[in-house]
Amino acid sequence: MLTSLIGCTGMDVISILKKMRVDVKDFKVHAEAELTEEHPKHFHKMHVTYEFWGKDLPMDKLKKAVNISEERYCGVSESYRKAMELTSEIVVHEA
Amino acid sequence: MLTSLIGCTGMDVISILKKMRVDVKDFKVHAEAELTEEHPKHFHKMHVTYEFWGKDLPMDKLKKAVNISEERYCGVSESYRKAMELTSEIVVHEA
Repeated sequence: MLTSLIGCTGMDVISILKKMRVDVKDFKVHAEAELTEEHPKHFHKMHVTYEFWGKDLPMDKLKKAVNISEERYCGVSESYRKAMELTSEIVVHEA
Repeated sequence: MLTSLIGCTGMDVISILKKMRVDVKDFKVHAEAELTEEHPKHFHKMHVTYEFWGKDLPMDKLKKAVNISEERYCGVSESYRKAMELTSEIVVHEA
């Protein structure tokens, strides 16, 4: 389930940033999730971390790309949001 | 997303049937899903087909194994059910 989500949103984000001509040197996206205590144990919280490496990366564009994916493009985010609490964060590495 | 679901429930079902000492010769599980028209396109319907091969397989036990997985064991089913319409069917092949 985590792989579906990061594959979906990761592809979106990097392709949106390419169209925006943002020069990202490296990019990683990973997700963590928390299981419920009650059975059947299932994810009730999921958190996606988008990590970018580059020189003077424009945070507004990074945020915009992530938002576009989460709200308009990525159907997996849309599905999961109906089933659990879905959050995300952006981490930027100067490189 | 489909692979997460069939991996989860498929493993449950076959392990439950083994415990029930049901002699299944072959087993396949597959899923189909329907995307919404509106964006972000996401799955609003998913249908899982459980196919069993064997001699005089007891339908009541097959149904029970599927129900136990869907309702008590498989967390992926539980999550997806909150986000979409989730249905299933059982197909038996005399073999």
